[in-house]
Amino acid sequence: MIDRVISVDEPDFKSVKQTAENHNILHVIPKSSYLLPGFTDLHVHAPQWPQAGLALDKPLNEWLQTYTFPLEAKYQNLDFAKKSYQSLVKELLANGTTTVLYFGSIHTEANLVLAQICADMGQRAFIGKVAMDNPDQTPDFYRDNSAQEALEQTEVFIQRLQKLQKETNSELVPVITPRFVPSCTDETLEGLGQLAKKYDLPIQSHCSESIWEDQYAIDRFGMRDAEVLDKFNLLTDKAVMAHGTQLSDSDLDLFNERNTAVAHCPISNIFFGSSVLPVRHVHDKNVELGMGTDIAGGYSPSIYRNIQQAVMSSQMLQDAGTRNARITAANAFYLATVGGAKALHIPTGQIKAGYKADLQIVNDQYSDVMSNNENDIFERLIYHTTKSQINEVYVSGKQVINRGENNGK
Amino acid sequence: MIDRVISVDEPDFKSVKQTAENHNILHVIPKSSYLLPGFTDLHVHAPQWPQAGLALDKPLNEWLQTYTFPLEAKYQNLDFAKKSYQSLVKELLANGTTTVLYFGSIHTEANLVLAQICADMGQRAFIGKVAMDNPDQTPDFYRDNSAQEALEQTEVFIQRLQKLQKETNSELVPVITPRFVPSCTDETLEGLGQLAKKYDLPIQSHCSESIWEDQYAIDRFGMRDAEVLDKFNLLTDKAVMAHGTQLSDSDLDLFNERNTAVAHCPISNIFFGSSVLPVRHVHDKNVELGMGTDIAGGYSPSIYRNIQQAVMSSQMLQDAGTRNARITAANAFYLATVGGAKALHIPTGQIKAGYKADLQIVNDQYSDVMSNNENDIFERLIYHTTKSQINEVYVSGKQVINRGENNGK
Ligand SMILES: [Zn+2]
Ligand SMILES: [Zn+2]
Repeated sequence: MIDRVISVDEPDFKSVKQTAENHNILHVIPKSSYLLPGFTDLHVHAPQWPQAGLALDKPLNEWLQTYTFPLEAKYQNLDFAKKSYQSLVKELLANGTTTVLYFGSIHTEANLVLAQICADMGQRAFIGKVAMDNPDQTPDFYRDNSAQEALEQTEVFIQRLQKLQKETNSELVPVITPRFVPSCTDETLEGLGQLAKKYDLPIQSHCSESIWEDQYAIDRFGMRDAEVLDKFNLLTDKAVMAHGTQLSDSDLDLFNERNTAVAHCPISNIFFGSSVLPVRHVHDKNVELGMGTDIAGGYSPSIYRNIQQAVMSSQMLQDAGTRNARITAANAFYLATVGGAKALHIPTGQIKAGYKADLQIVNDQYSDVMSNNENDIFERLIYHTTKSQINEVYVSGKQVINRGENNGK
Repeated sequence: MIDRVISVDEPDFKSVKQTAENHNILHVIPKSSYLLPGFTDLHVHAPQWPQAGLALDKPLNEWLQTYTFPLEAKYQNLDFAKKSYQSLVKELLANGTTTVLYFGSIHTEANLVLAQICADMGQRAFIGKVAMDNPDQTPDFYRDNSAQEALEQTEVFIQRLQKLQKETNSELVPVITPRFVPSCTDETLEGLGQLAKKYDLPIQSHCSESIWEDQYAIDRFGMRDAEVLDKFNLLTDKAVMAHGTQLSDSDLDLFNERNTAVAHCPISNIFFGSSVLPVRHVHDKNVELGMGTDIAGGYSPSIYRNIQQAVMSSQMLQDAGTRNARITAANAFYLATVGGAKALHIPTGQIKAGYKADLQIVNDQYSDVMSNNENDIFERLIYHTTKSQINEVYVSGKQVINRGENNGK
């Protein structure tokens, strides 16, 4: 077990290698396999996993009311939660995702089940108890009954998760999680901003995913969605906002000023966002960006698939007339590694001395018939890797996936 | 071995089942696995396989000149051809693709190597020797040296493939294959139309993939790309034209009149077509449509991936303002099964009495945590299946892939 990366440039590399050999822990990566940093997924609705790939032809509102909310409500049942979350966490790890920023459900107990499973399976997890108490915008069978309940349960969850983290010595962090502005009363938004400050915690929500969402903020607050979040102290340098497809230039300036990151969810945006985030433009505005699957608005648990889609969506944006919109596979890979790590302020996403050893060992299945220059191999891995080619995954040096094939041990 | 599907509605189903049991050939599909028809891939450039997923950020012209043509030229080397084609055919079968319409290279011998491999591995293959002799539009290191050579080699290939088909008792069909209008001289286009008639053969080419291609036809012939193909008798009811993203309504009327099919290649169209085929509109114009991966303009050998992209691209087309553009996963699945089979006039694509037993047995990896109503299972298979979930594949009842896992035997 290694818990940090040893650089080949370090003067003691040879002796480190020798020491590893002496202790019989030297791990040689097999031919045609490559070591990549693990991915950070900045946007996953954990309870929606059973819905991944279903009902994608429904409009967002129907999708939420008919499918999503009834599904999330089921997590009151902890047996159901356990089975579903075990499947999800295993799936994400198998896809090379070593850190995840999770929306849980409204249920404190079920969210702790998710946390325990992440601890058991060794995934670095940022988990939020979803707060949603606005009776106008949430169904009666699935909401916090009051602002007081939303805030109390959030605080209970924070304290219990921090306790669990210590007991398990795992990498678990509680996250302040207003579902999105429309779901919350002013009192809840206000209180969540205070809790974020009190406990110095990350924040996650959605911002400007749709024209409807933007109009809602105007109608209720007379300001833009981003400004509402800011007013309640929810745009901080530890905040990650999903989607942001409709962010205006002044919104982006505000994000930049607050050092708030955007989670780009390219597959989900096609089905439910009705538009494409102009990644290059957001980057040019110096706003931090990472990658998210947005399970289950996005059907795929694979960051590889989302990287592919990010490139394709940017190409389509360019074809539709946005100048200089095209991003490369390397750009999108950066979002999924360095970008996500920066958004969460964790030393991951790079294979480099001093960084956590979050790693995936990926098999290049076509090395015998395809070009083997460095850039071609990289592109090929990005476009062809599915979980079946990810033979091993490590989080902080601990092996969490081992497909037991050609693993070179 | 079965070579046609027995319907459960047939009066003799019970006795058929009993007979199979008696002969110890009853195959029971394991729990959580499903039987789907094999796919027809209507557009594959076989020699481009080593380039799948590479250099996708290059403009089409550079991609062709710098990467594709030099690569295709290498197939003069039959050892290279054999290795590459073995990898490709195996990969397509493993992805559930039981019938393929292949562009070969200009090399008769290498195309016969591809044919032999398809025969050996049991894939139903329609294969064309690519004709391209226009010195203005083809590189000197990769072209037919004259119209005479293009036509002679096409005829030699037809005869030798038909001989090979008989010798191997396999499902191989030669295809008349002008690369596209710009690549061919008038004499070659004329001669290919005659050969198609003489041997009563399928035809494949590209039509209206880009604005450049359309303008080229206007400049050289004073007519539209589709009209040029028609003038040379290359739009027939056995013809399949790739892409067609720029087809006008009058072009579509012509396709409909000639009963010519379009191969929809959604991934490739994003990278190199700069637009989205309006599938619904083409369908409403009564033009036949199938699905193609367009390896290597499309990076993925998976028809599942292309079905997903067809749905997403149609959603983006609708978001961009085209009314009623959205297609469903079921629509796209139809193209990849029934549509492709109709385009090639083969009794496949349906699990139905009288149809060839082209089948894939697909594992539903999430059945334990996801909804199990019929439509949900179908959507989930479409959105989550990679080759690792395709445990067995059959072509005309002969098993061609067996991953040896849970196959219920
Ligand atoms: Zn979301
Ligand atoms: Zn093509």
